[in-house]
Amino acid sequence: MINAPRGTQDLLPGVTEQWQYVEEKFKELCRTYNYHEVRTPIFEHTELFQRGVGDTTDIVQKEMYTFKDRGERSLTLRPEGTASVVRAFVQHKLFGQASQPTKLYYAGPMFRYERPQQGRMRQFVQFGVEALGSADPAIDAEVISLAMYVYQQLGLRSLKLVINSLGDNQSRTDHRNALIAHFAPHREELCQDCQLRLDQNPLRVLDCKKDKDHPAMATAPSILDYLNEESHSYFEQVKTYLDQMGIAYVVDKNLVRGLDYYNHTAFEIMSDAEGFGAITTLSGGGRYNGLVEDLGGPETPGIGFALSVERLLMALEAENINLPIDTSLDCYFIAMGEKAEQKAIELVYQMRKAGIQVDKDYQAKKFKAQFKAADRLKAKYVLVLGDNELAENIINVKNMENGEQESVEIDQVIPYIEQLLQRGQG
Amino acid sequence: MINAPRGTQDLLPGVTEQWQYVEEKFKELCRTYNYHEVRTPIFEHTELFQRGVGDTTDIVQKEMYTFKDRGERSLTLRPEGTASVVRAFVQHKLFGQASQPTKLYYAGPMFRYERPQQGRMRQFVQFGVEALGSADPAIDAEVISLAMYVYQQLGLRSLKLVINSLGDNQSRTDHRNALIAHFAPHREELCQDCQLRLDQNPLRVLDCKKDKDHPAMATAPSILDYLNEESHSYFEQVKTYLDQMGIAYVVDKNLVRGLDYYNHTAFEIMSDAEGFGAITTLSGGGRYNGLVEDLGGPETPGIGFALSVERLLMALEAENINLPIDTSLDCYFIAMGEKAEQKAIELVYQMRKAGIQVDKDYQAKKFKAQFKAADRLKAKYVLVLGDNELAENIINVKNMENGEQESVEIDQVIPYIEQLLQRGQG
Repeated sequence: MINAPRGTQDLLPGVTEQWQYVEEKFKELCRTYNYHEVRTPIFEHTELFQRGVGDTTDIVQKEMYTFKDRGERSLTLRPEGTASVVRAFVQHKLFGQASQPTKLYYAGPMFRYERPQQGRMRQFVQFGVEALGSADPAIDAEVISLAMYVYQQLGLRSLKLVINSLGDNQSRTDHRNALIAHFAPHREELCQDCQLRLDQNPLRVLDCKKDKDHPAMATAPSILDYLNEESHSYFEQVKTYLDQMGIAYVVDKNLVRGLDYYNHTAFEIMSDAEGFGAITTLSGGGRYNGLVEDLGGPETPGIGFALSVERLLMALEAENINLPIDTSLDCYFIAMGEKAEQKAIELVYQMRKAGIQVDKDYQAKKFKAQFKAADRLKAKYVLVLGDNELAENIINVKNMENGEQESVEIDQVIPYIEQLLQRGQG
Repeated sequence: MINAPRGTQDLLPGVTEQWQYVEEKFKELCRTYNYHEVRTPIFEHTELFQRGVGDTTDIVQKEMYTFKDRGERSLTLRPEGTASVVRAFVQHKLFGQASQPTKLYYAGPMFRYERPQQGRMRQFVQFGVEALGSADPAIDAEVISLAMYVYQQLGLRSLKLVINSLGDNQSRTDHRNALIAHFAPHREELCQDCQLRLDQNPLRVLDCKKDKDHPAMATAPSILDYLNEESHSYFEQVKTYLDQMGIAYVVDKNLVRGLDYYNHTAFEIMSDAEGFGAITTLSGGGRYNGLVEDLGGPETPGIGFALSVERLLMALEAENINLPIDTSLDCYFIAMGEKAEQKAIELVYQMRKAGIQVDKDYQAKKFKAQFKAADRLKAKYVLVLGDNELAENIINVKNMENGEQESVEIDQVIPYIEQLLQRGQG
C-alpha cells in the first residue's frame, strides 16, 4: 500500500467543508477590503527565494524542496507567498497600473521540509495579502485589522496581537551594530547557529529558541531605542490608527520575524486559548520596503501578512467553535422496479438541472436500506417511485423531519420540491 | 529580473475572478449531484503514478516532475488526479464507510513536463470527480451528465460528447490479440513509439498522432466487435440512460484515452466552436474497475472524469461568453484634512465590519484624483468627509450612477448605505 508522503495530509469529506468555509470567508472579507486574488505557480526559479526570502534564513538554507526539471532548471516548491506575489507584481508591471496601491490576496499550499508536528506540516496552506505601493501607516493598520478581522469573523476570541517596529535602514544598521557589540563578549556561549547569525543577521539571534534563556538576551539593546525620528513617528501613527479602530495590541520589542526582508511594522497574532498547544502563532506579517527593488522592480513600499489555515482550524477547535456548515441533502430518490428505475434516472437529472440536490441508489439496495441511506445523507425529503406509482403517474414525497407524506403528480414534482425548499429557507 | 518558470502562468486580478466563478459553479453542481470534495497533496510517492497511471504511458515515461526530497524519497508532482484520489480512498479505508458509492470531487493544479502551447501548460488546473463503489451503468451516465452539465451551466453550446466502450478484461484481451495480429505485417512502417506500443499496449497505437493516416489504421479491428455479452449489455445500458436524459452523443470506436487503467465506458467532451484551436478536447473520463485493487484496496469499481480549466475558459472565449462577474465596489471614502482622515480610518473599518465593501486613498492623492480612483474602482457610492463636514457631524454621499448627493449624519451612515445597497439589489 502507498500512503501520502510524510508531512502531507489528505483532506476528506467532512473536513473539506471546513476548509471551504474558511476559504470563502477569507475571500469575502478580502473583497470587503478591496483586495483581489492573485494565483502564482506552485514552483518558482530557486533564485527567487534565495533573493526574496533571504540566503541566511532557515527556510532557504534547510527547508526548501529544490529540484531540477528535465531542462536542468533549478526549481523550488514555494515555501511562502510573498516572494512569488512580488515577482508577479514586477513581471507584469502591476506598478504601472492606474489603481494604486495594488492590493492582492492569495490562498494556497506552501512547502517546507521540516520535522512534522501538530500545526506544522511539510505541505501547509496559507492565506495572505500584500499591499504594494503605499507607505502610509494607515495601510499598515488596514492590513493588521484585516488579519484580526478574519479570525474575529470566524468567532475566535482568545487572540493576542503583538506589534513591533524594525525601523528603516538607518535604524536597523544602528541597532545591528549595537547588537553585535552587546553579544560579542558572549559569542562562545551562544549556539552554533547564533554565532553565524551574529555575523550574518544579528537581529535573528533574538529569535533563537536555544539561547532564549541566556542572560545577555534580557539585556540586549532594543530596536525601539534605535528608531530614528521618522521610524519612531511612523510606528506611533500605526499605533494611533489601531487605537482609533479599537484594536487591542501589545508592543513586543523582541518580535523580529524569521524572514530577512522586514522593516518598520512587524506583527504576529497568537492564540491564547487554553490547550492550544506549543505553537501559538496563528499568523504574522510586516512591512518590506525594498523587496520589490531586490526583485528587479522600481522602488515600491509593501506590507502584507500570511496566516496558516491548519492553525486557524486548530484555534477554532481549541475554542470549541463549530462553523455553520450545512451537510444536509435536499432529496433522496428511491425507485423500485425496472421501469421506475429508468424514469428515476431522467427525473433525478431534471431535478439536478433545476438546482435541487438529489441522490439515488447505485448499488441495487433493498427499499429499507435505501431509506437508511437517505437518513445517513441527511436528506430532507425522500421521493418514492414504484411501478405502481409510475402507472398512476405520481411520486410519494416524504418529509424526513416530521414524517408527513404527500402524493404528487410526476410532472409537478420539481415545482413542488422547489416550493418546499423555499419554505424551509424562509 | 526573475520570471515565472516556463509553462506556468500567474493569474492576476481581472482574470482570477473568472477562475473563482467557474470553480464556485463546479463545486455547486457537484454538491447538487451529492459529490464531496477531497484534497490530496501536490506531490506523491513516485511509485503511485508508476502503478496508478501506468509505466507505459507518456505521462510516466516522459512528463513527470520527479525529484528526491532531503530524506532521499522519490516524490512526483501529481500529473493527474485519479491515482491520488484512489490512493486516499484506500489509505483512509473509505470503502468501509456506510454511504456507498463514495462520490468525490477535486479541483487543483497538476503538473506535466510537456512542450508548452495554447491550452497546454506545465502547471494546469483540473476539476474532476470520482465515483467509487458502484458498477451500475446508471452511475456512468450520472458522471457523463455531470461533465456535460458543468459546461452547459456555464453557457457553452458547441459541445460534442464522444463515447466508447473498452470492454472488460476478456474483451480487451481478445481485442488486443486482434490488434497485434492486424498491425504485425505493418510493424516496420509504424513510428518508433508505436512499435513499442505494439508490444506493451497495442490499444494506444490507435491514439498515435504520427501514424493516424496509415492505411492500417482505418481497417484496424474495433473493440466494439470484441465486446463480450456482458460488456456489450453494459454499454447498451449506459447509452439508454443517456438517451433517457436527452444527452446527445456519438460513439467513436477509436476513442481509447491515454491512460492504462480504463475499461468499459470511456468518453471525451470536445468543443466544436469555430476558432477554438488545435486541441479540442475539453475533458475526458471513463471507468477504471481494477485500479483500487492495483493500489492495495479491495475489489472496487470506479469511474470518473477530469476537465481542464484552461481549456474551459478558452471554450468560453471561443463562444464569446461573458461570465456574470460583478467587479464593482460598494463605496469609496474620500477624507480631506488631518482630523477627517483620522475619522475615516475608523469609519472605513466600521463599514467593513458591517460587510460593506469600501476602500480609501493611501497615497495622499488630491480630491479630484481620489474621485477618479473611485470611478476606476467602479464605486457605487462616494462618501466625502472634510474637516467642515466633520465639524457638522455629517458625511456627503454621492450616488455615482445618477450623480445624486445626500448629507447623512455620521452615525447614520452605515445603516443608510446598507439600505441603499439593499435597494440596489432589489
